[in-house]
Amino acid sequence: MNTHAGAGAKAQILVEALPYIRTYRGQTVVVKIGGEALDDERLARLVAEDMALLALVGVRLVVVHGGGPQVSAAMSAAGIEPRFVEGLRVTDSDAIEIVGQILIGSINPKLVARLASAGLAPVGLSGADASLLVADPLEGLGRVGQIVSVASDVLNSLLSDGYTPVIASVAPDAGGQLLNVNADVAAGAIAGALGAAKLVYLTNVEGLYRDLGDSDSLVSELKSAELTSLLPGLSEGMRPKAASAVDALASGVQKVHILDGRVPHALLLEVFTDEGVGTQVLP
Amino acid sequence: MNTHAGAGAKAQILVEALPYIRTYRGQTVVVKIGGEALDDERLARLVAEDMALLALVGVRLVVVHGGGPQVSAAMSAAGIEPRFVEGLRVTDSDAIEIVGQILIGSINPKLVARLASAGLAPVGLSGADASLLVADPLEGLGRVGQIVSVASDVLNSLLSDGYTPVIASVAPDAGGQLLNVNADVAAGAIAGALGAAKLVYLTNVEGLYRDLGDSDSLVSELKSAELTSLLPGLSEGMRPKAASAVDALASGVQKVHILDGRVPHALLLEVFTDEGVGTQVLP
Amino acid sequence: MNTHAGAGAKAQILVEALPYIRTYRGQTVVVKIGGEALDDERLARLVAEDMALLALVGVRLVVVHGGGPQVSAAMSAAGIEPRFVEGLRVTDSDAIEIVGQILIGSINPKLVARLASAGLAPVGLSGADASLLVADPLEGLGRVGQIVSVASDVLNSLLSDGYTPVIASVAPDAGGQLLNVNADVAAGAIAGALGAAKLVYLTNVEGLYRDLGDSDSLVSELKSAELTSLLPGLSEGMRPKAASAVDALASGVQKVHILDGRVPHALLLEVFTDEGVGTQVLP
Amino acid sequence: MNTHAGAGAKAQILVEALPYIRTYRGQTVVVKIGGEALDDERLARLVAEDMALLALVGVRLVVVHGGGPQVSAAMSAAGIEPRFVEGLRVTDSDAIEIVGQILIGSINPKLVARLASAGLAPVGLSGADASLLVADPLEGLGRVGQIVSVASDVLNSLLSDGYTPVIASVAPDAGGQLLNVNADVAAGAIAGALGAAKLVYLTNVEGLYRDLGDSDSLVSELKSAELTSLLPGLSEGMRPKAASAVDALASGVQKVHILDGRVPHALLLEVFTDEGVGTQVLP
Amino acid sequence: MNTHAGAGAKAQILVEALPYIRTYRGQTVVVKIGGEALDDERLARLVAEDMALLALVGVRLVVVHGGGPQVSAAMSAAGIEPRFVEGLRVTDSDAIEIVGQILIGSINPKLVARLASAGLAPVGLSGADASLLVADPLEGLGRVGQIVSVASDVLNSLLSDGYTPVIASVAPDAGGQLLNVNADVAAGAIAGALGAAKLVYLTNVEGLYRDLGDSDSLVSELKSAELTSLLPGLSEGMRPKAASAVDALASGVQKVHILDGRVPHALLLEVFTDEGVGTQVLP
Amino acid sequence: MNTHAGAGAKAQILVEALPYIRTYRGQTVVVKIGGEALDDERLARLVAEDMALLALVGVRLVVVHGGGPQVSAAMSAAGIEPRFVEGLRVTDSDAIEIVGQILIGSINPKLVARLASAGLAPVGLSGADASLLVADPLEGLGRVGQIVSVASDVLNSLLSDGYTPVIASVAPDAGGQLLNVNADVAAGAIAGALGAAKLVYLTNVEGLYRDLGDSDSLVSELKSAELTSLLPGLSEGMRPKAASAVDALASGVQKVHILDGRVPHALLLEVFTDEGVGTQVLP
Repeated sequence: MNTHAGAGAKAQILVEALPYIRTYRGQTVVVKIGGEALDDERLARLVAEDMALLALVGVRLVVVHGGGPQVSAAMSAAGIEPRFVEGLRVTDSDAIEIVGQILIGSINPKLVARLASAGLAPVGLSGADASLLVADPLEGLGRVGQIVSVASDVLNSLLSDGYTPVIASVAPDAGGQLLNVNADVAAGAIAGALGAAKLVYLTNVEGLYRDLGDSDSLVSELKSAELTSLLPGLSEGMRPKAASAVDALASGVQKVHILDGRVPHALLLEVFTDEGVGTQVLP
Repeated sequence: MNTHAGAGAKAQILVEALPYIRTYRGQTVVVKIGGEALDDERLARLVAEDMALLALVGVRLVVVHGGGPQVSAAMSAAGIEPRFVEGLRVTDSDAIEIVGQILIGSINPKLVARLASAGLAPVGLSGADASLLVADPLEGLGRVGQIVSVASDVLNSLLSDGYTPVIASVAPDAGGQLLNVNADVAAGAIAGALGAAKLVYLTNVEGLYRDLGDSDSLVSELKSAELTSLLPGLSEGMRPKAASAVDALASGVQKVHILDGRVPHALLLEVFTDEGVGTQVLP
Repeated sequence: MNTHAGAGAKAQILVEALPYIRTYRGQTVVVKIGGEALDDERLARLVAEDMALLALVGVRLVVVHGGGPQVSAAMSAAGIEPRFVEGLRVTDSDAIEIVGQILIGSINPKLVARLASAGLAPVGLSGADASLLVADPLEGLGRVGQIVSVASDVLNSLLSDGYTPVIASVAPDAGGQLLNVNADVAAGAIAGALGAAKLVYLTNVEGLYRDLGDSDSLVSELKSAELTSLLPGLSEGMRPKAASAVDALASGVQKVHILDGRVPHALLLEVFTDEGVGTQVLP
Repeated sequence: MNTHAGAGAKAQILVEALPYIRTYRGQTVVVKIGGEALDDERLARLVAEDMALLALVGVRLVVVHGGGPQVSAAMSAAGIEPRFVEGLRVTDSDAIEIVGQILIGSINPKLVARLASAGLAPVGLSGADASLLVADPLEGLGRVGQIVSVASDVLNSLLSDGYTPVIASVAPDAGGQLLNVNADVAAGAIAGALGAAKLVYLTNVEGLYRDLGDSDSLVSELKSAELTSLLPGLSEGMRPKAASAVDALASGVQKVHILDGRVPHALLLEVFTDEGVGTQVLP
Repeated sequence: MNTHAGAGAKAQILVEALPYIRTYRGQTVVVKIGGEALDDERLARLVAEDMALLALVGVRLVVVHGGGPQVSAAMSAAGIEPRFVEGLRVTDSDAIEIVGQILIGSINPKLVARLASAGLAPVGLSGADASLLVADPLEGLGRVGQIVSVASDVLNSLLSDGYTPVIASVAPDAGGQLLNVNADVAAGAIAGALGAAKLVYLTNVEGLYRDLGDSDSLVSELKSAELTSLLPGLSEGMRPKAASAVDALASGVQKVHILDGRVPHALLLEVFTDEGVGTQVLP
Repeated sequence: MNTHAGAGAKAQILVEALPYIRTYRGQTVVVKIGGEALDDERLARLVAEDMALLALVGVRLVVVHGGGPQVSAAMSAAGIEPRFVEGLRVTDSDAIEIVGQILIGSINPKLVARLASAGLAPVGLSGADASLLVADPLEGLGRVGQIVSVASDVLNSLLSDGYTPVIASVAPDAGGQLLNVNADVAAGAIAGALGAAKLVYLTNVEGLYRDLGDSDSLVSELKSAELTSLLPGLSEGMRPKAASAVDALASGVQKVHILDGRVPHALLLEVFTDEGVGTQVLP
């Protein structure tokens, strides 16, 4: 019977997941994944497996993705020179065409295909589908918008029938013209509208640092109020995540996680084991 | 009371639609629209109105689109030289990337936005979503495929909840890699899988000609068997439509229409009035 | 292509209906039709077509009818002499028997048959069915009553299963004896109980006149408060419509229309086109 | 404790009903009641109580009624002279108007009111409602018809929502014109279409006599085949009941009863006790 | 026809039940039955019939039982000497094992079998099933508990699907160890949690006596407040019933009955006839 | 990042379970557990965890248990001398009382409590509940029966609402008297009636041996036909499992497993990993 030694360890780990499955079964979890993670073939596969496990044990999973690096590359290829106003990229109508092509037409179907291979029934969406997101243009930035409404009925409809929505962060304005919207912000708005139990940001940093540049200042847990006070000092990439986390918690989301997406299976470990990875924010 | 003369005519026309609404309410109608129609701003708006009217009176509408001209333009822009084998375009992996970007990331969201403006709740899909379509690569053509299975559950799920599926004709192979599939064929396969009452091809010709080049030979109605016998003599563009029509009728679709999409409101007139436009094929 | 000129106009008119269909689809519309309209063979057919179109595009249609002229004729034939108290017809037990026979046993099944021919699945009801209406006798008028309760569950049950309720304005008292109730008032009470979007009175006048006898004083739109102030000066036939309109708007009905039922397709034109006919009352 | 002696007997009788309730709960029972029973105030009240008890313990009850005597009286009052062809009353268009008024407009709402007083939620119907019955005219008899189709969906819809359908035996022809149909036949056709467990004829005779005129020849039970052989010798009133019983049993109805409706609570006793009343016919 | 004389009386009694069936159909009734009633073969059969009749006419019936005498007998047989603290039996771990075996393993399946024979679909439960009851141990009494929570979802789930829950009064503590709980108290807590229309205690006394020992002081009806004031003077067996009655009425139960279970069909007579038996308590 | 080394292994094992979860999610798995496993505190806890994991990832889990050793112990304690006829224990009415008390009243609620602690919503049942099992007595063996019918509706009802049925192997005969039935046979009959995907026997042997006494002859996989041929030579304890396995496979069960319940987490490892434990039987 000692051939079952390794087996015993396996079983132990599966059993360790039990209380977490119990907790999150039937709950909504929104995961935002960045473009970097999707570009690394191996990481992308691991993340897909993690997401599949979540969905298969009964979590109502919603995936939101951006695609900054891929969009930048495509713009360079098209010879579009980047222009910035107060740190935000100005997006003209040629550029928004490229944003749509890359996010909706390239990154989204690839992520959908990966999740399908991992055993899910994913359905790719953008903010235009069933008027999921509506945005208003931000002045002076061309076709960049901020989300003004979320119509989550199509998400609930798909989730109820067992599908996993995978959302590209592009949204129409009131007239139906597409706008580029920040994927971190979109994920937060969607998590808030769905009353999600968890909102998870998979990033390419270890988590949130209290002091930028001081790698010892990684925060493992903090409250929304404290995060608000840290906002001004955060890095440019972290700021929209942090601000959206604060908003999402105010809208009823129970917990926000900022995880290091470069750690293999970071999502799985966070949700299904005692291993804490990265930073968690409580209301 | 004679101020109502024009009104009377209006009412008469609305009433004329009554028996057609009665007939098609609750029935599934699959409409395939070509890239040309979508490029003409005015036609595209009219077609969106027609589709909206169909869906709003209770037709279970499914839209399938291609985008040949737009894909060709994008390829030229990217400097990809077209190569053909027996009349079929060879699609390498760079090219399929462009096909995905244009069909899924550009044409599809624009069509979705149009239909939303016309009052529908459209949801854009590709063959990858919920494994709607699976295709096998056609030898020697690179990333071009023929459809081997249709999983229509996501369509029924969306239709039941009042959404209008809008499908880009791209399908993954068994390994999840995207393949270019003919939109006419995709529309036929989907209509067959859904047991549609009608399959409508909106084209840029007047209909099917018995004799290529003889504009007097336009056929207004024919049977599937006769169409089969005409197949060898048809134009290259008409052949996949005709072959798919034959297949769809064999799978239980009740009627296939080949309409002139350049005629304003051709779809509406065909479905809701006595005006016959183009060619209809019966089993 | 110019053979499609007439067709183009047809299509244009169908498309004009689109925003109205969008607005009223799934909404409840209560239409009260008078006995006169039902006696005119041609008008009755046109009205049935209009109602069918409403119901077929997804309006939850409820029809209420009276039958004054037919009841009067039947009473004369039976040798019952009319007697009035303060303008209201006294109804003894012989007379209420005739009212029931004519409204429930003659007008209602004929209207049901017409609507069935027009493609609906109509179900004839009176206030007695499933205790839809309960009335209290009005003192001194014999078997004439005023409605004291509406139990709309049977209407919702039939509407949900796709049937069109057609209601004769007769209601039992608490003891189960039938009473004659004013059809205008019944329609208003039912519209209020259902929270209808629209209540439409099809009458045999052009609409509401500010000054009785001055045909230039036709009002095309007014508010409930103004209508209340006009009540004392209204004609005897208009007063119950107007008072019920005020009550219905107070109960949450969004709009009341008083239309000229003699105009062919007045109902259709009002609901589905920009043509305003008659008077509309807003809250 | 002997004050409970009477109570004990009461309890015993309630308990005796138990196995019958068990058997018929959830089963469909169609009861045809004749005009005579409805004219006798006391009998009509008792029958309503019986029907209420059936429906309240969970029987899916459908009531069908005629009204021969009341129609005859109304015709005499209107001065219409009866004319017969081979024993069947010829019904011209004046006469059918009276049939409709009496059956749909007088008898039906009174029966509905009675059943409502007894605690049910009855809904009066005629064959015209939701195209429940369609009939073809019988040659030479004017507006008399034989049933050619039964669309029982409206009955199932009402029964599922807890309503009791009460049906007047009048049916439209294909063109929507009402025809007089035999109520016994209508009841049989409806029972067959619903796959009823029981079809009960409440009559004004003791049951079926093997030999007309010999009161000792009352049959308490017989098979369908034997009844078929007795058909030629039956009384004119019994023949349509017997023929419809044979047809209903052939369509899957499990048992047909011909009861003496003049016996107080005959229906209740037949369904809920061991007391056999009248004649029962088995397949 | 005078052979139907006895039948007439039968019918009359069935009809007398009509208003009660109307009242309690669809309502929840919780019946607590004591161990004594279950030990008397004949009474147990009669009670099962009564319960079956209730459930079959549409009452949502929940049965709760104790088993004091049977537990005492089994304990004696096992040589466990009874020990009491302030009148409450101390239950050690051997004793609770016997309590479980007798209540869950002997009385419950026998009652289930009886109810099944009477035509129901009973499902035996204890407080452990689906965490129906959770109890806290009462200090100094070993494995005796008081109920701290009721999770009635499994009862509603079974009732909705037509099953009759039959509950043994044993409940786990927070750690899953079984505790003995008073069946009167369990019945009250369950009735309160379900918002029952009626809670019925079937006892082996005639009802509640105002003065213990004075058999003329039987109370037929009283209010909750008055019962509260009588609590200190009640017999030891009556006190938990009375206290639970007060609590149940405070939780929304509409009426509590304390009936003499030795009277044949006491339950049936109370619910379905005008015969009042025992004591009823109103809010 | 190397602090995540152990975490990585954990994640790997969770991910390994993915394809198995995918396969068995929504499928029915019947697990039979013997009395020995339930007597060993530690094994019983591990098995409860395994069952909880199965149910929480969406398996429709049904548990069947016996309790041979516990029943034997209780009988000895009660001084009942065992008597055997052809290897089968004769069960008189005193003995069946003890069987019921131990299986239904002791083992079942303890197993229910364990599964509740592990996070499930278990509901204990015996064959008497909702007539789940009916058995016929085996001649000459007293109150021992063989199953003649399975009414699985209560299982489906509980499973649909998220409960886990836990079934004691006791069944009533047609007259409602309890009979002892073999738990292996009961599990097989239930699995067959439910069309289970898997039937798992947790035993106290390593699996099935081709040659009794030759521990090298353990079979890891065999077909139903082969198992049938082995039946005569099997041990007495294995024979009912093997015969029931053959029957269950013939009724549509897809796979039967005979696992060593003494291996910790044997159930989990069999269902969720590549580790094969014990013997599997295919159709």
